[in-house]
This record gives sequence, structure tokens and C-alpha cells, in this order.
Amino acid sequence: MTAERQRTGIGRLLISCPDRPGIVAAVSRFLFEQGANIVHSDQHSTDPEGGRFFMRVEFALAGLAQRLPELERRFAPVARRFGMEWRFSDAERVKRLAVFVSKAEHCLLELLWRVRSGDLRAEIALVISNHPLLRETVECWGNGIPYHVVPVTPETKAEAERRQMELLGDDIDLIVLARYMQILSPAFVSRYRNRIINIHHSFLPAFAGPNPYEQAFARGVKLIGATAHYVTEELDAGPIIEQDVARVTHRDSVEDLRRIGRQIERAVLARAVAWHVEDRILLNGNKTVVFA
Amino acid sequence: MTAERQRTGIGRLLISCPDRPGIVAAVSRFLFEQGANIVHSDQHSTDPEGGRFFMRVEFALAGLAQRLPELERRFAPVARRFGMEWRFSDAERVKRLAVFVSKAEHCLLELLWRVRSGDLRAEIALVISNHPLLRETVECWGNGIPYHVVPVTPETKAEAERRQMELLGDDIDLIVLARYMQILSPAFVSRYRNRIINIHHSFLPAFAGPNPYEQAFARGVKLIGATAHYVTEELDAGPIIEQDVARVTHRDSVEDLRRIGRQIERAVLARAVAWHVEDRILLNGNKTVVFA
Amino acid sequence: MTAERQRTGIGRLLISCPDRPGIVAAVSRFLFEQGANIVHSDQHSTDPEGGRFFMRVEFALAGLAQRLPELERRFAPVARRFGMEWRFSDAERVKRLAVFVSKAEHCLLELLWRVRSGDLRAEIALVISNHPLLRETVECWGNGIPYHVVPVTPETKAEAERRQMELLGDDIDLIVLARYMQILSPAFVSRYRNRIINIHHSFLPAFAGPNPYEQAFARGVKLIGATAHYVTEELDAGPIIEQDVARVTHRDSVEDLRRIGRQIERAVLARAVAWHVEDRILLNGNKTVVFA
Amino acid sequence: MTAERQRTGIGRLLISCPDRPGIVAAVSRFLFEQGANIVHSDQHSTDPEGGRFFMRVEFALAGLAQRLPELERRFAPVARRFGMEWRFSDAERVKRLAVFVSKAEHCLLELLWRVRSGDLRAEIALVISNHPLLRETVECWGNGIPYHVVPVTPETKAEAERRQMELLGDDIDLIVLARYMQILSPAFVSRYRNRIINIHHSFLPAFAGPNPYEQAFARGVKLIGATAHYVTEELDAGPIIEQDVARVTHRDSVEDLRRIGRQIERAVLARAVAWHVEDRILLNGNKTVVFA
Repeated sequence: MTAERQRTGIGRLLISCPDRPGIVAAVSRFLFEQGANIVHSDQHSTDPEGGRFFMRVEFALAGLAQRLPELERRFAPVARRFGMEWRFSDAERVKRLAVFVSKAEHCLLELLWRVRSGDLRAEIALVISNHPLLRETVECWGNGIPYHVVPVTPETKAEAERRQMELLGDDIDLIVLARYMQILSPAFVSRYRNRIINIHHSFLPAFAGPNPYEQAFARGVKLIGATAHYVTEELDAGPIIEQDVARVTHRDSVEDLRRIGRQIERAVLARAVAWHVEDRILLNGNKTVVFA
Repeated sequence: MTAERQRTGIGRLLISCPDRPGIVAAVSRFLFEQGANIVHSDQHSTDPEGGRFFMRVEFALAGLAQRLPELERRFAPVARRFGMEWRFSDAERVKRLAVFVSKAEHCLLELLWRVRSGDLRAEIALVISNHPLLRETVECWGNGIPYHVVPVTPETKAEAERRQMELLGDDIDLIVLARYMQILSPAFVSRYRNRIINIHHSFLPAFAGPNPYEQAFARGVKLIGATAHYVTEELDAGPIIEQDVARVTHRDSVEDLRRIGRQIERAVLARAVAWHVEDRILLNGNKTVVFA
Repeated sequence: MTAERQRTGIGRLLISCPDRPGIVAAVSRFLFEQGANIVHSDQHSTDPEGGRFFMRVEFALAGLAQRLPELERRFAPVARRFGMEWRFSDAERVKRLAVFVSKAEHCLLELLWRVRSGDLRAEIALVISNHPLLRETVECWGNGIPYHVVPVTPETKAEAERRQMELLGDDIDLIVLARYMQILSPAFVSRYRNRIINIHHSFLPAFAGPNPYEQAFARGVKLIGATAHYVTEELDAGPIIEQDVARVTHRDSVEDLRRIGRQIERAVLARAVAWHVEDRILLNGNKTVVFA
Repeated sequence: MTAERQRTGIGRLLISCPDRPGIVAAVSRFLFEQGANIVHSDQHSTDPEGGRFFMRVEFALAGLAQRLPELERRFAPVARRFGMEWRFSDAERVKRLAVFVSKAEHCLLELLWRVRSGDLRAEIALVISNHPLLRETVECWGNGIPYHVVPVTPETKAEAERRQMELLGDDIDLIVLARYMQILSPAFVSRYRNRIINIHHSFLPAFAGPNPYEQAFARGVKLIGATAHYVTEELDAGPIIEQDVARVTHRDSVEDLRRIGRQIERAVLARAVAWHVEDRILLNGNKTVVFA
């Protein structure tokens, strides 16, 4: 127990507040006084004069797991003084993901592989789909990730979402829409606000909505892209986390764009999910601050 | 003279026609029979069954300059047989560019440098601007490129375009809008159809119209881009020739986006202009076939 | 049967010979006379004067499968006339791959996924490893790809390679070394000359040999890369097919380089294998001509 | 004067020392107590346990210019306590560059343009060349940058370097070798240690030494690159600051590689120079920490 109390853990502190002098001094002094050693620190100010300040600190602290509640209690007055939105997290707590899919498997496979390889430090707690198609894909990984089929029709949507919420329970850190082809209701979105990441298969804001590859082909663009963003009530308009593109030419058919695009989609989604899991993303209105 | 007749030149043949068997055989046989040696050849078919066929052939031929008219006469019946749009060009004829600018110099400078370094094999015949600002930039290059100031106001636009057409004369191969901040009239555009290239400072179709960097900043995209396209009557909607992007982060202000974007704009525009000058671009409706 | 005879197939003709006038005319005329319609054609000459000429033609032909032997017989005299190295292939014949692995699964998984998704049109006939570790990975795909363990030690290497050759049999089109950590003997390499592709985890020629990521970290490079190349007797010195890089920073440890590098390795290897399978690669001495 | 004393300036503090708890707290507290507001801060530790710690802080302070000596005096004891290498700088002091060139103008032009456009906040104090060739290029910019020709032969090298040092005088912040084709003596290098940046036209460590494009062409690489690094006594082996690459194909001749490479060289060099000028580069042995 004593040994355990002494085990050094890695903690994270995320802060967002109005910018003004003294914030870094106050935070770093607080951590120092708790015996924490700052391992990594990032900060950003939208404007030193009256802008907003964002900070992410990673620190090493003996007995972190046990001391988190005490840290939070002690930090509260500092936070109040600067009007901070803030949270501590234990880097060693493995976050639990729910992955929503339909029929396309590439994004799901990417997440499964990165979890397995350790590139993505998270647990895929369950997979929910409106189709049975990918059940075998999930089961063949053999580590017992449950695959739940929840059919969705316009009529049954409300009921389906109730069922999905049941399955999600209360301890899911992030919902990943890995090419999930259904639109979530505002009620669902608001319940999991800033905890739903979607991959859209275009370089937003270009080609929002359905069939982006057909749209891209019709316009004759020379690059196609993918965009990972937090889901909001407005379709494909949430805060952008990550984007990337690949070159295409006149030779590429719509089917080629899909094939090329799959590689971008899975890479972009995987990066966005990793950043969320590592507490690297802060929200600034409808934009993101990503301390990658 | 005889020696000159024998001088081997490089010619280009560009073809666009309905696809059907025998086109390549007929074209390559024709060139072979004329004594031409195919140096390079590219082709593309949108669909072997009832699609459109595009071809670009570069060939070496003794006495090319003198023999072009004869080649064209002899090729006409072949072209008729396949319903071809076609043209021959002499690769050694240096194309004449007119560059339109306003106050931003980076795209103009890029073109001046590339012509001087030989990376862009063309002649900048004149520069036309609605501002005197860049006169010195052009003159300091000392090779006597004329710089014409043609002020434009809503009232004088028609008169200004008449003046511009006078200055352009009849032997300009390409008009380059190098961050020219005026919109050309449909009459002007149609007179130089497929001979006006514009650089738009966004990844079209995202952020068309004014202030694309402000739009990109407001949306919080993670990549910014530039697009070179042929100018049509519809603003920023012409056939896309080339696009590229650069990564940006939450740290970048609108001014940073402009600074980063300048590098993309000049590179993208220079590539598009080079491809046009080298007869590498064919039009397929509102899209381009680029044999780069 | 008659119907089958008439079924239109896609064929490919690959040619390499000394450049001289008339090659394209002769080839395209030949194909036209056989009733073939050229669907796609690429060519390259290292120098129209006394250089080497490379060509890849894709053509549609009724009853291709049945007519290939006849095509080859008829083409022989044309080929002789120009001193061609040449071969026809039936695009619809699915090539058979043997994948060699050790303990790293990312490249193997990438190939399995791309075959399954149809992005890579090939059959993985067998997997050979010097370790049992990845047996489950292969079996979980359930489509019965055999996984053979052939341990290798300095003493047993010759015997191991005999065993590997037995397993490979006579109808393997390509051996893919998907992070296979053993060096093949010259005898083995020469038996499968130009049919073995290796992925090296550096931007060759930098960091050849063992531990490229450690080497890259020690040198402090700002980009790391991967290289897919044909295997020759000289280690990491064979013809390069494809390379790519990713950006790294001072923050990245050797372990980070490995993680980032895995993404490049699997993408570069998959592209190289696809190009080989689609007959897009021709050899020019120790360099490749890739008609991608 | 009082007004001037109150003018708020931007200062920078760069630190490098053995890592241990309390550094950030001590530094941020110090700055806070001086009335400075931290505008931006980056840090890096090679290893929290016994590694080396690097920090760059940008801060706003009233009357900075006048208060720098006092700041340094007051910070000295803090620095001593942690065994820091450190320096303060005034972000508003424009650094003075000396550019060394030979016959290639692209890198020089890039620097001239970026200074003029304000993308690079520095002053080009003089240009030194072993050839008269680029005199006109420099003079045409009309802002009076002196161009000095210092011929170099094996016999006269020592004398030439003495002349160069005279011309450089005592207040040059950075020497930029913008495709300067002479090797500097160890004596010269050690006098300006960590103040000479060279652009090498390959992706180091590949193709060090002369004719990298010929080497790249001979090896058949699919990407070519450029590397900006600090010059040390060992040729092309100094700390790498920045690298980038561009794709090439079998179609590209050595001359094409040079043309494509020029675009990479000038971009890579310009970024490296900007980072040096903005005090973003710290040295970690033979590697760089770049707080870009």
C-alpha cells in the first residue's frame, strides 16, 4: 500500500480561461508545491490582451492515483481566481471507446489494429452497428469485444437510440463514428457533447453531406481529403480536429477516389481519436486547440 | 537553309475525340510515315465504351518548323475520320504571357524567377495592373518587360477592358491572373476562353469568393490551400488545373495563413502555367486532363 | 463456350527495347489488327537517341484468355524486329503472393486487408514465418490462408530455404518480405529474381542495414521514411520501387519513430505490391520504371 | 523617455539545463515577479529522469529594451541554481544576416523576397560571393545591400577567409550559405560556431558531398530532398535544422531533379533561417530542438 502510494504516475491538467498575467506562474508553482514534476507543457493564447488562454500540462507525481481528489480540491481556489475551466486526468486510466459502424470496415479495422499494436492506448468497449455485416470482423480479433446490431429506420430511430444509450451505459469516454451512416438526433448528440468524433470523407467544408466522392469527381478537384470532427447538431459543421488529403488525377474514377480516400479516412480518424484519448484537444468555440 | 530544313525539332500533337478502336494505331502510323519519332506519349479514356479519348504526343521530326503546315494538311483526313479536336504545336516556339497583378507581388515574382531560371519556358510579354505599386518590381528585372497601369472602377470597367485588350494585342498565348483583384467581364472571358488562368487562395470549392483566409480561419480548418483554374463566366468555378495545401494549426492567425498561403499560391500557379505552356492540359467539360 | 470465346478480357503487353522510330506504330498497329482496343498506354524513353524504350499497354480483346498463346506467336516477329524483351499478361488472372513475416504484423495485416477489401487484386497463397507468433492473426481471417513456421538459424539456413522453396512450389508470382527479419541467400534470391519485394524501414540509401530507426534518431533527421525495393544479392541495394516519408520532431523517441514509421512502411509496401501485381513495374538496370 | 520606458516589448528567454523538478515554476515565477506576461512557452525534456531540459519563453514586458540588462542580472542566480545555459533576447531587435553565394541565385532570391515581404524579419547586411555573377540580382533590389566578390582558390583560401571576416565585422548574427560552393576552414567555422547555416541539396545523410542530384539519379530514388543544417568542421554532418522532399519519377533527368530540387532547397533554407532568427532553435549535442 505504502509502496503503491509512492508509485509515480503521470497526470494531466487541462485549463482554459481568459488570458491575463500570472497563470503559468500560478499553475507551475501549484504543481511544484504538490511535488509534481512537469514532464510536458503546452499553452496557447488567442490574444495576450483579452484573449483566451489554453494550457495542457503533463506531470509526474508519486501516488498520483490516490492523490487526484486531493489535487483537485487544492487546485479549486487557484482555478477560481483565474476563472478557469479545468480538469485533471490520470494518464494511466485507459479510456473506453464505443465504435459505431455500418458496412465499411476500414476505419473500424484501423482502430482495432492500433489498439492491439499499442499505438492507440484505449479499450474498445463495444461496437454498435445498424448492420450485422461486420460482426465477424470484430469477433475474429478474439478479444471478446461485443458487437451489437441496432437496426435503424426513420420510424424506429428514437427507439434505436434509446437502445444504443442502454448499451453505452455510463462509463464510455468517447463515441467514434467510424463511417456510421446514420444521423444522430440532437438529443443523442447533446447527451454526449464533445464526446462523439465523426470521420467525414471530404475536405470540409467542401463536399459536406452525402456522396462527397461523387461531388469531388464531378468538380474535378486534384486533391481529395477526409475530416475528423466533433459531432454537433448541425451536420458536418462541428469543430474540426484533423484533416488530410491525397492527390488524385483525371485517371481516377469515383471508385478510385473511394479506394484512395479510405486510406486518408482511417489515418485521419485514428489520429483524431488518439489525440482525444491523450487529452490533447481543447475546444475554442467551434474550433479546436490541438496540442499534438 | 537545307541544313535548317533538316534541323530536328520537337512537335506536339493534342487530340480529343470519341473513344473507339484504332485511334492510337492511326495516329502513330501517321507520325511514323511522316518520319517522326514519338518521344513521349500520354493518353486517357474516360470510358473505352462510348467515352471520350484524350491524347498528347511529343515527337521529333527533321525540319519540323517548316513542315508543320504540311503535317496539319496531311493529318486533317485522319482527324476527320475520328471526329477529332486536334492541334499541332512547335515545342520550340516560346509562348507569350500577359500577367495581370494588383498589389501582391509573390505570384508575379515567382513567374519572373522561373522564366529567368529557365524553369518556365515562356516569355512574359507584358504586365498589366490596376495599381502602379509593382512597377519597380518588374522594371528592376531590367529585361524591359513593360508594366502598364490600367485603373479599374465600376464605372470605367468596360473602358479599362478595352484598353487591356489593346495592350494584349493578338498574339498572347495565355493571360495569368497573378492575384489580380478585379473580376473580368463575361465578354473579356469569352474572348480569351481557356487562355486565362487564375490563382484562387483557397482549396476550391471550399471558400470561394472574397477573403478565403478569413473564412478558413473562422471555420478552423487544419489545412489551407490554393487552386489554379481556367477562368469562366462563373466566379471561381472554372476547370481546376492544380491544387495544393499546407498544414496550419490553432496557433496561426489570419496573417499567418496569408503568409503560409503565399508559398502555396505561387507554387500552384507556377505549375499550372508551366503545364499550359507545355501543352499538357486538355479540357473535358468543366474538368481538366493534365498530362503532367 | 462460343460465348466464352467472345468474352472480352483485358490484356497487358510490357515491352523494353532499344529506342528507335516506329516502335509505337508497330505495336499499336499489331494490336489493332488483332482486334484489340488500347484502353491505356504508357511509355518512356531514357533517350530517343540510343536510349532504352519502355512501354506498357492495356487493351481490351474478345476471347483474350483463349487467344493469348496465338497473340504471343503472332507478336514474336514484331518483337524480334525491335529486339524487344516483352510479355503479355491476362489482367484477370489473379496473381499468387507468398508473404514472409517474422514478429511484426502491421505489413502483413495491411496486405490481408487490402486483398479482402479488393484494393489489392491478388491472392495470398501462403504465409511463411520464422516464428509462430502471427499464426492467429492469419487464421482469424478465416479464409484458410496456410501459415507455415520455418525456423531459421545460421546452421539451418540452407535447410530452411529448401523447405521454403518446397512450400512456395512453382506457381508463386511474388514473394513479399513484410518485415521478414532474415537475410535470404544469393541462391534463393537468384531463383526468384525480380519477384521478391522487401520493405526497408528507412529512406534508402540512408540508414541501410539494421536498426534504421535508431540510426535516424541518433542523426537527428526531421523526416523518416520507408523504401520498397526488389531484393538483390546486395543488402538493401536493389531497385527502388517506392518510398515515402513522415515528419518527426525532437519530441519523438526511437519508439515514436517506430510507431510513425509503421504507418509509412505498410503504405509504401502495399503500393509497391499493387504495382507489381498490376504489371506496372519495368526494370532499367538497377532502377525501376513505374507506370503508376 | 518615460513613455519609452513604458513601451511594451516582446522578449525571449532560452534555457537549456539538466532536467529536475521546479524549473518551470522558478522561471515563470521570476517572469511574473518582473511584471512580464508569458505570451508563448515551449519546453522539451529528453528524459525527466536525468535528461536535459530545454525551454523557450516569449513574454511581454513594459520597457523591455531598457530593462534587459537588469533582467539578466536578476535572472543570473536562478540560472546558477539550475546550472542553466541561457540567454535573453529582444524580439524587436532585427538580426543581421550575411549571405554567401556562388552562381545559383534561387536561395538568395528566396531570402531577399522573404525579407522584403516581411515573412522573414531580418536584415540582409551584405552578400559575399566568390563570383561576380549575382551582383546585378542583389543590386536590382535597390535597397543598397552591398555585394562583395571574394574569389577563392586553394592557394588564396586563407587570405580570402581573412577578407570575409573583415567584411563580416563583429555584428553579424547569422551566416547563410545559400548554395555557396566553397568549403569553409575549421578556423572559420569555429569562429562562427552555431551561426552558420548551410543548405545541402539532398536528404541527408543520403548523398552527402558533391553532386547529390547525380547520386540520387544514379540510385533511382523516388523522392529527392534538401537539408538545412548548422555547419561544423565535418562536411554535411552538422546538426540538422529542417528537411523536406519532393516526389520524382523515372521520367526525371538529373536536370529535372535540379529544377525540382531548387524549389525544396529555397523553402527548406528559408524556414531554417526564420527559425534561427526567431530564436526557435536550441542545440542538443549534434541534434536540434526546434520550437517551431
